Amino acid sequence: MTLDSPGPPAEAADRVFEVHAGGKISVATKVPVVTREDLAMVYTPGVARVCTAITQDPALARTLTIKGNSVAVVSDGSAVLGLGDIGPAAAMPVMEGKAMLLKDFADVDAYPICLDERDPDRLVEIIAALSVGFGGINLEDISAPRCFEVEGKLRQRLDIPVFHDDQHGTAVVVLAALLNAVRLVGKEVGPSLRVVVQGIGAAGIAVSNLLMAAGVVDLIGVDKGGIVTPRRKDARDPIFRRFGKQTNPRALEGGKEAALRGADVFIGLSAGDTITTDHLQLMADDAIVFAMANPVPEIDPMLARRHAAVVATGRSDEPNQINNVLCFPGLFRGLLDCGAREVNDQTKLAAAAGIAAIVGDDRSPEYVIPSPFNRAVVPAVARAVAEAAQATGAAPVSVP
Amino acid sequence: MTLDSPGPPAEAADRVFEVHAGGKISVATKVPVVTREDLAMVYTPGVARVCTAITQDPALARTLTIKGNSVAVVSDGSAVLGLGDIGPAAAMPVMEGKAMLLKDFADVDAYPICLDERDPDRLVEIIAALSVGFGGINLEDISAPRCFEVEGKLRQRLDIPVFHDDQHGTAVVVLAALLNAVRLVGKEVGPSLRVVVQGIGAAGIAVSNLLMAAGVVDLIGVDKGGIVTPRRKDARDPIFRRFGKQTNPRALEGGKEAALRGADVFIGLSAGDTITTDHLQLMADDAIVFAMANPVPEIDPMLARRHAAVVATGRSDEPNQINNVLCFPGLFRGLLDCGAREVNDQTKLAAAAGIAAIVGDDRSPEYVIPSPFNRAVVPAVARAVAEAAQATGAAPVSVP
Repeated sequence: MTLDSPGPPAEAADRVFEVHAGGKISVATKVPVVTREDLAMVYTPGVARVCTAITQDPALARTLTIKGNSVAVVSDGSAVLGLGDIGPAAAMPVMEGKAMLLKDFADVDAYPICLDERDPDRLVEIIAALSVGFGGINLEDISAPRCFEVEGKLRQRLDIPVFHDDQHGTAVVVLAALLNAVRLVGKEVGPSLRVVVQGIGAAGIAVSNLLMAAGVVDLIGVDKGGIVTPRRKDARDPIFRRFGKQTNPRALEGGKEAALRGADVFIGLSAGDTITTDHLQLMADDAIVFAMANPVPEIDPMLARRHAAVVATGRSDEPNQINNVLCFPGLFRGLLDCGAREVNDQTKLAAAAGIAAIVGDDRSPEYVIPSPFNRAVVPAVARAVAEAAQATGAAPVSVP
Repeated sequence: MTLDSPGPPAEAADRVFEVHAGGKISVATKVPVVTREDLAMVYTPGVARVCTAITQDPALARTLTIKGNSVAVVSDGSAVLGLGDIGPAAAMPVMEGKAMLLKDFADVDAYPICLDERDPDRLVEIIAALSVGFGGINLEDISAPRCFEVEGKLRQRLDIPVFHDDQHGTAVVVLAALLNAVRLVGKEVGPSLRVVVQGIGAAGIAVSNLLMAAGVVDLIGVDKGGIVTPRRKDARDPIFRRFGKQTNPRALEGGKEAALRGADVFIGLSAGDTITTDHLQLMADDAIVFAMANPVPEIDPMLARRHAAVVATGRSDEPNQINNVLCFPGLFRGLLDCGAREVNDQTKLAAAAGIAAIVGDDRSPEYVIPSPFNRAVVPAVARAVAEAAQATGAAPVSVP
C-alpha cells in the first residue's frame, strides 16, 4: 500500500494512538467452551476424528478448518507506506489495518504475519511453509524488485491465490477508473489509446501489464531518466529491460515530453517526480490524468483539472480517489468463495470491470470510481472475481 | 498434546463435525471502520505515525500492535494426538482448538500456524522469522527428538517465551498433582522421594527434568528396554544417554521391577507399555500412581486404586485428570502480562505450585488436581508465573 495523503492534524494524533493501543484485531472463538462436553468436541478426543477425516481427504481442510476463509497478510517491512524500509515489527500496524479492512468490508479472516527475513528465496520458503492453514496470501509492502521474485515463485509453487496488493490492487483500481474515464470522453481502452505511465516500480509495472492485458498497446513508461527503452544505459535490471521491450511500440526515445505528446492518458505512480501544466498541454484533447504520487500528487489536482477532462489522485480529500481498498476485500472474498487456486489476469480484469460497473451511468469527471464505503463494491467484485476464476479454470466450477 | 480418552460415541460424531464446519476461530476487529475518518486512523495516513513511533522505539510494538497479547500455536503435524505424523493440514483442527482454549480460558489471542517443513534447522528459521508479531510461541505436536532441537534453538534465539506444551505443559501439571499427592501421604517432593518415570519420550524427559528441578533426586527412567542407563546398548541417542546420566543415582540396572521396588511414585507416559498389580505391590507404602498413557492408561485406574494411595490419569471420565489445559492458558496469560522474554524452570515450578494451591486443604485421594473448568486456575497460574518471571529476570520488573 502507499500513503494516501499527509498525516492527520496534530489534534487527531492522540486518537490515532488510542485506537492502536493493544493492536487493532483479536482472535474470536466461534463456539464457546464451557463444559467438558464442549471441550471433548473442539479439543481431545473429538477433534481427532476431524483430523483423521482431513488426513483421508485433504480437500476437507477447506471446510473443516479456518483455511477456507483465511488470508495471511504477509510483509517483510521493506517498503512500508511512504516510510520505506522500517522493518517487520514497525510494519505490523499496517498489516493489522489491512486485516481489519478484509474483515469489516468482506468478512475475510485475515491475519498479519510480518517476517524478519530479506532474502527472496528464503521468504518464498517461509511463506510456502506457513501457507498450509490459509486460503490465500496477500503480500504487502515488499520492496521491488524482490517482490516480483517472491510473488512469482510463490504463484508457481502454491495452490492458493498469491496477490501482491501494491502491484495488482493498484492496477485493478487504476483500470477500473480508466474504464469509466475513457467512456466519458468517447475513447476506449484498446489499441488506439495512448497511455504514459510515469514511475516504473512495482505498481507502475503491474498497472502497465494489466492495461496491456485489457487491450492497451501504445503504452510508454517514463521515469526520471526519460522514456524507458531496453537500450537505456541504466536498464541493467532484467525486469526493467523486459518492460522496455514490451512497451513503447513506436520506439520513442527522449524525455517525458516526447512520451506525452499526443497521449490520451497520464498515469503517475512516481513520488518525487512531478509534471507541469506545460506537460499536460502536450497531451491529446480530453486528456485523462491520474496523478497518484503520495502524499503529494505529481501535479496539483486543481491545476490539472483546468487542462484535463478527468483527474484522479490517491487522496481521500479529492474526487476520484484511487484506493486499493476498492479491490482487495472483494477480490479475496471472491477468491475464497470459489476456492480459487490462483489469481490470473482474467480475474483481475473482472475485478476492475466489477468496480467500474458500480459507477455505471452515473459517471462524471468527478466520479469515475466509487467510494470505498459504497457497500455495493465488495459483492460486485467478489461475484465478478469468482465467475472469472471459475470460467478460466483458476477455481473448481463446483465449489466443494 | 495427547489424546485423552477414546473418541466420542458415534451419535456425537455429527455434532463434532458440525462444530468444526468453517473452522473454530475467526478474526475480530476491535474498532469499526465505518467512516473515512476511521479509515484514516486505522489505515493510511494515520497508521504511518504509529509505524514511525515503533521504528523509533521498538518496545512500543508490545503496546501499539497485537504483539503484547498474541501467541502463535505452531506445529509441523509430525506427532499429533495419538494419530502420529498426519501432516500440517490435518493438524489444524488441534491447533485451532488450542487457540480457542487460550482465548476462552485466558483471553490470549492465539493463532494456529501449521508448517509444511520437517528439517529442524529450517523450522527454527521459519518460526524465528514469523515470531515478530507474537509475544509468545506455543510449539505443539512436534515429534521427538526434533522437538528438543527446535525448542532449544528458538529459546536461544528469540526474546519471547517459547514453550513446547507436550513437554513442559505436561510436566507442570504432573508436578502440580504430585505436590498435592505427596502431602496426602505425608511425603514430600525432595531428595527422599523415589520416583519412576515410564516412557522416556518428550513428555517423560520434560517431566523428569521438572521434578528434578523441584528437588527430586532419586528418579529412574524405564522403558520397554528396562531401566534407562547411559551404558544401555540401545542408548545411542545423545538426549537419551544424557537422561541416563542425569538420573538413576543408585545406578540400578534391569527391568522395571528393579526400578519399582520401594518406589514412592510411578509416572507413566508410555502408550502401549502397561504395568500390573504385581508391579504396584513392589512399590513403597502409600504409592502414588499417575498412569497417563492415552487413550488406555498403563493400568486400569480402578485396579490401581486398590493398591495405591493416589491414582491419576489423563482421562476426563476418571478423578484426577492430568490435563495440560490446566497450565498453558494461565501460563501464557502470565507471560504476556509481564512481557516475559523466556520461560525458565522457576516459572514452570511457580505454575505448578499455583495449580496445586487451588486444591489446597480440600485435597483428597480423588482430588489432587483441580478441574480445567475451575475459574480460579487461570488467574492463579498467571499471577504465579508473572511473579516468578519478574523475580528471576525473565521479565522486566516494571511492565512497559
